Amino acid sequence: MSTDCRAYLALERQFARIAAINDAAGILGWDAQTMMPDGAAESRAAAAATLSVLAHDALTDPRTGDWLAEAEAGRAVLAPWQAANLREMRQLWRHGTAVPVDLVEAASRAASTAERVWRTARADSDFASLQPALAEVLTLQRAIGQAKAAMLGCSPYDALLDGYEAGARTAAIDPLFDDLAGFLPGFLGLVLERQAGMPALEPLSGPFPVHAQRSLGEHLMRRIGFDFNRGRLDVSLHPFCGGATNDVRLTTRYDESDFTRALMGVLHETGHALYEQGRPADWLTQPVGGSRGMAVHESQSLIIEMQAARSRPFLEFLAPVVREAFGGSGPAWAVENFHRLYTRVQPGFIRVDADEVTYPAHIILRYRLEKALIAGDLALADLPGAWAEGMHALLGLTPPDDRRGCLQDIHWPCGGWGYFPTYTLGAAIAAQLFDAASRAEPDLRPGLARGDFTPLVRWLRGAIHGQGSLLSAEHLLRAATGRPLDPSIYRRHLERRYLEGE
Amino acid sequence: MSTDCRAYLALERQFARIAAINDAAGILGWDAQTMMPDGAAESRAAAAATLSVLAHDALTDPRTGDWLAEAEAGRAVLAPWQAANLREMRQLWRHGTAVPVDLVEAASRAASTAERVWRTARADSDFASLQPALAEVLTLQRAIGQAKAAMLGCSPYDALLDGYEAGARTAAIDPLFDDLAGFLPGFLGLVLERQAGMPALEPLSGPFPVHAQRSLGEHLMRRIGFDFNRGRLDVSLHPFCGGATNDVRLTTRYDESDFTRALMGVLHETGHALYEQGRPADWLTQPVGGSRGMAVHESQSLIIEMQAARSRPFLEFLAPVVREAFGGSGPAWAVENFHRLYTRVQPGFIRVDADEVTYPAHIILRYRLEKALIAGDLALADLPGAWAEGMHALLGLTPPDDRRGCLQDIHWPCGGWGYFPTYTLGAAIAAQLFDAASRAEPDLRPGLARGDFTPLVRWLRGAIHGQGSLLSAEHLLRAATGRPLDPSIYRRHLERRYLEGE
Repeated sequence: MSTDCRAYLALERQFARIAAINDAAGILGWDAQTMMPDGAAESRAAAAATLSVLAHDALTDPRTGDWLAEAEAGRAVLAPWQAANLREMRQLWRHGTAVPVDLVEAASRAASTAERVWRTARADSDFASLQPALAEVLTLQRAIGQAKAAMLGCSPYDALLDGYEAGARTAAIDPLFDDLAGFLPGFLGLVLERQAGMPALEPLSGPFPVHAQRSLGEHLMRRIGFDFNRGRLDVSLHPFCGGATNDVRLTTRYDESDFTRALMGVLHETGHALYEQGRPADWLTQPVGGSRGMAVHESQSLIIEMQAARSRPFLEFLAPVVREAFGGSGPAWAVENFHRLYTRVQPGFIRVDADEVTYPAHIILRYRLEKALIAGDLALADLPGAWAEGMHALLGLTPPDDRRGCLQDIHWPCGGWGYFPTYTLGAAIAAQLFDAASRAEPDLRPGLARGDFTPLVRWLRGAIHGQGSLLSAEHLLRAATGRPLDPSIYRRHLERRYLEGE
Repeated sequence: MSTDCRAYLALERQFARIAAINDAAGILGWDAQTMMPDGAAESRAAAAATLSVLAHDALTDPRTGDWLAEAEAGRAVLAPWQAANLREMRQLWRHGTAVPVDLVEAASRAASTAERVWRTARADSDFASLQPALAEVLTLQRAIGQAKAAMLGCSPYDALLDGYEAGARTAAIDPLFDDLAGFLPGFLGLVLERQAGMPALEPLSGPFPVHAQRSLGEHLMRRIGFDFNRGRLDVSLHPFCGGATNDVRLTTRYDESDFTRALMGVLHETGHALYEQGRPADWLTQPVGGSRGMAVHESQSLIIEMQAARSRPFLEFLAPVVREAFGGSGPAWAVENFHRLYTRVQPGFIRVDADEVTYPAHIILRYRLEKALIAGDLALADLPGAWAEGMHALLGLTPPDDRRGCLQDIHWPCGGWGYFPTYTLGAAIAAQLFDAASRAEPDLRPGLARGDFTPLVRWLRGAIHGQGSLLSAEHLLRAATGRPLDPSIYRRHLERRYLEGE
């Protein structure tokens, strides 16, 4: 075996160790949201921080850098998947080493403080009380962006974005989001007009017992293909999909007076979970076996929730199943009412309550604002005003207070700058993948009408899940659909569903 | 600040990091027994092994050894608790560095293999099928004992024992166990004779729903002083007390046809948990803030389960509480029947089913055999015969097969050599502590009759829990009770309860 190959194999061992630490951190993170008693918070934070330092130490170990250089020099001897793995290792190493440790730690502390302040500020709808802590977070995120920008050769905002979605750049996102921002207001008017002519929603009246909601959720998860031998469903205040390798854990929150949100929430997280459970089995401990960024991850949740589960064929299957699960009867439980319920459009102030049509407006607003804040083109003190203005331009609404405006999301106080665009990129990718899958698998839509996800999931396993990070996001999409990201497919999906009643 | 002090403070940081890793491992271990889906076993083993390596790396880091030497040279500037902390750090370092890494890893692999083989061998009652794998474990444990013996200046068996109970030596245990072994057979005869003259046990007939058992257990845990803000109660196949700092998690297993075992099991684990929750708050991340070895730990579970909860005063409180919890009625639910049930003596083959009187015989047998096996005075092939002989001498029973003989415990296949004696040391310490606590707190026994553990737990907090590892186990016991371990107190406890009906 050549020296170069030894360096590459040393890297595989080092990244397997990092993956094991991250798995431990994943279980600790899940536990903190679902099982941990309150009094353990401080000790748990210390344990989580230690794991994070250990993973960072392993990544930025001087030997890691040496092995990377050696392995890259001897790239010729590597198999294609190993070369891709090496590329992903280098990408992780760049992000890990670009930022000095004291800056990472300062940013982490500032985010902890701002998150705590934010919880009170949001409740009080008091932006001024958050501003100093948020300014500190912004200053440090800008510094991180600048440090990474120097390493990656891009703008600071692009460098932050690159940490969530490798290769994504504002130069590509701007035209896409401008296209959508131009399309949405007129489209929304048409949708609301059409909706006004439809029969009123029949209310589904409960109570809907938690145990029945859980059974229904688990039943649907199994149907979709979730493997309970390698995962769980639990309860947490904020639903998420987390856990570890071969141990994918998703959560939901039950409301006994309304099952509809938890139900779609479980299907959304199941989409994320299928991606994690479908990662290439031979490379699970390696970067090349990881999911292909946050936008593709979001596309996997949305292809299940938005593309498949809110489609008319699936709702035809779902309505009687749900009716039976809760012993319902009457017109509220008819397919038509379900379809109206799950495709209802209603502009509102809150992102997490938004429907499929208005959701992109919430994201475009945040994307434009955070880009301007990082670039220094917008002062933090002017954020509430800029928010209100943007909200009015995009959705025709003016938030009555900051709680329902720029204080609603945890992302900025927590240091998650550059994350927001991945939601809408994910929605557009989901539409394009579903379109391609439907063409490739003629039984996909008829399958959904029988509650059979096999054709869809089979296609996703091959085109997306099993690919890991072998290709860049751009090439993955092109290989799966034959074209780059095309917003017209996303628009066409919205038109079909919301104007043509498909 | 002097250079010496800097070395000591560097050690505090290093051991805090190790504690954080161990906390993460503690939650992962709990999760594996309670929550983890089966398909995650292999990935979880990799994560757990990685954490174990990271903790070991931090302990055996050359800097740790340098800091220890420097700090010890400057010991004069340290506060007493810091000096004790330094002594405990050195003890951990000795055990960590005594054994070459490849021997640690070989022993760990051999134990994994032997444990797997053991599960089948026990089910089949086939010692011969386990013997090769067990021989490998024994050989490697003997090598570990020899490596540690050279470092600690004691025999190999003492060196293994020292890893569970610092400072314990066969020279002190032998006379104690010989004393008990001489006392028990005659005593047992008297107890059985007395028991034969008592009314028959009235059977408690169920079913006893799991939710009612859980509520009752949680109610009693709260009464005893368990803090649910820093801990949990869950279900696992094999009950244990684990978790992490400020997050003490105990488990039980419910049987709807018999609540009596789960009930006392919960109280037993609550004793362990109280110890963990009562560790000195200022030193939680440091070795000196850790519990004082396995024998003292077992004493804390037994002081709650055996000394307090099976005492007549507490059973007077418990019987009506349990009767109400399960809606029972009739003579089976009378205090007298509860007392007979929870102090019933019945020699048997299985250690984990043994009563308070016969339990020490099971331990003395194992202690003598493992000592002889490590010393090479007994060949592994002769173990089944030696077991049967010892069992007959101590309890008058001959096991009908190895499943009910030398194959019943997981300890030896798993590499837990030198652990067994801590069970009976713990029982003797518990008797001595309870005796001292009863003298110091006149309201202790009357309190138990009201279900009030305050006097007992107040005394334990001061004398044991809050001491951490400030003192050696020997000095801790002496400080708490005014004398060294005295088997006559333990014998007297057994006589009072089992011959005098106290």
